[in-house]
Amino acid sequence: MSDLDFSNWSKGIQQRTEAVLDRLLPANNIIPTKLHEAMRYATLGGGKRVRALLAHGAGEFCHADAKKVDIAAAAVEMIHAYSLVHDDMPCMDDDDLRRGKPSCHKQFDDATALLVGDALQSLAFQALSNPGLLAPQQQLEMVQLLAIASGSRGMAGGQAIDLASVGQSLTQTELEYMHIHKTGALIRAATLLGGHCASQQEADRIHALGQYAQNIGLAFQVVDDILDTEADTATLGKTAGKDADDNKPTYVTILGLARAKALAQELYDQAIAPLQPYGEQASRLVQLAQFITNRGF
Amino acid sequence: MSDLDFSNWSKGIQQRTEAVLDRLLPANNIIPTKLHEAMRYATLGGGKRVRALLAHGAGEFCHADAKKVDIAAAAVEMIHAYSLVHDDMPCMDDDDLRRGKPSCHKQFDDATALLVGDALQSLAFQALSNPGLLAPQQQLEMVQLLAIASGSRGMAGGQAIDLASVGQSLTQTELEYMHIHKTGALIRAATLLGGHCASQQEADRIHALGQYAQNIGLAFQVVDDILDTEADTATLGKTAGKDADDNKPTYVTILGLARAKALAQELYDQAIAPLQPYGEQASRLVQLAQFITNRGF
Repeated sequence: MSDLDFSNWSKGIQQRTEAVLDRLLPANNIIPTKLHEAMRYATLGGGKRVRALLAHGAGEFCHADAKKVDIAAAAVEMIHAYSLVHDDMPCMDDDDLRRGKPSCHKQFDDATALLVGDALQSLAFQALSNPGLLAPQQQLEMVQLLAIASGSRGMAGGQAIDLASVGQSLTQTELEYMHIHKTGALIRAATLLGGHCASQQEADRIHALGQYAQNIGLAFQVVDDILDTEADTATLGKTAGKDADDNKPTYVTILGLARAKALAQELYDQAIAPLQPYGEQASRLVQLAQFITNRGF
Repeated sequence: MSDLDFSNWSKGIQQRTEAVLDRLLPANNIIPTKLHEAMRYATLGGGKRVRALLAHGAGEFCHADAKKVDIAAAAVEMIHAYSLVHDDMPCMDDDDLRRGKPSCHKQFDDATALLVGDALQSLAFQALSNPGLLAPQQQLEMVQLLAIASGSRGMAGGQAIDLASVGQSLTQTELEYMHIHKTGALIRAATLLGGHCASQQEADRIHALGQYAQNIGLAFQVVDDILDTEADTATLGKTAGKDADDNKPTYVTILGLARAKALAQELYDQAIAPLQPYGEQASRLVQLAQFITNRGF
């Protein structure tokens, strides 16, 4: 498949994800209107939808119905959106800019941003547990997977480790541990949820997806750190160089730019290795891995 | 059943709820240790566990296995604990005291409190979706019920309306709308989840539980407002008179003390009316309604 084909495919996924989120989010005119407006502000109209792309790429790899994957992808994007809203708040990273717009607490207020995050998390689990999506057993497994990935031993736990690491000198192993939780857990969940939408589960393919997702999740973070160093604020849509300014350890501060880039390449290789036996059937996931590791450089 | 019997029963439920929560919450020595310590601080060792009592009362009424109800009760108590942690934060009610102890953000810090709430919400859905608790279909319905009750059209939405009402003069109808969401939704969910743990669902009993819970949820809030006016801080375990000081409308400020007490009695009567056909089988739920409407006066 060509780059053009991938570009069209990803645009299609981004559009359908936007449409599904628009449908699942309560309308602006439903009470409490300000909260619903803020939830929509924080979730719609932005982002590369990397997690939705991974869910759909994995769904295609496992022959899942894309309409089912839509819901799983939207649920993961809601969890991601909530984490960004809370992460940007003054008591966390205190960031005023997100996706090129004022972050949620700047556009609205801190209390509303807190509730936006809380309600988006609930809505993600509401979407995944909506009756009739898949077999109840499958949906229940998906709820379990997303809950574990989001919680104190997944994404929220990674945030806690990240907070504790400010001003600390971490080893590469410690940094990796943090990122496996902070961003890796949800990226892995997105990928596996896509696979879990298939009516027939193939254990080999799910296992390959797990290995792929683990490596691509870390690669994603290494690339984020590289972009944070190299890109300017306008390109990034969030405040560039903020992590380094905040005295947070990054792959670039620990390894230097050249070795960080080599690590991204190495993680890419490890991500696609388990997909080799599937040849052309895995080409979308390979393209996605390229897309994630080549953003902007 | 006597008052002594009810007192022993409720102590037993409080103890088993504490034990189940202790088991479901990650241990203090699991990384990230500070987050897990704070989650345990915010959830364990306090509170009347009204929602767990309602879940178990409803579970007994529907002949559910108490061991199943334990998990549902714990999940609801986690959602309740998360809402208190976020509610106490400086950007919300800014309250330093909770259950007679420093509130979570005072004992730890704002960022940790934010993550404690986030991770407790995830853990509630993790507990409810744990494989093998009940039939997958039943568990999925319970996840759906709790997600809706927690979200923007339930508890979180009620918080948003509460925030918007500060300094406003509300009618009794508007105040009722706020409380039906803010506290009523989760109290209703607790009661219905207890009933949903039964292996055989009886539609009539579930319907009666819904009506009972709706009224008892409102009664709970009216009594809270009365207690907030009458009790002192030591008895209450949180800052007394805070709502009135914060210029928040309460049932007492709108109706006056005497009419607020009459309303609590009226809601009690409406709560137990749908249980009359069940006679002695509903006596535990009637006792619970008495307990909720007679706290402290």
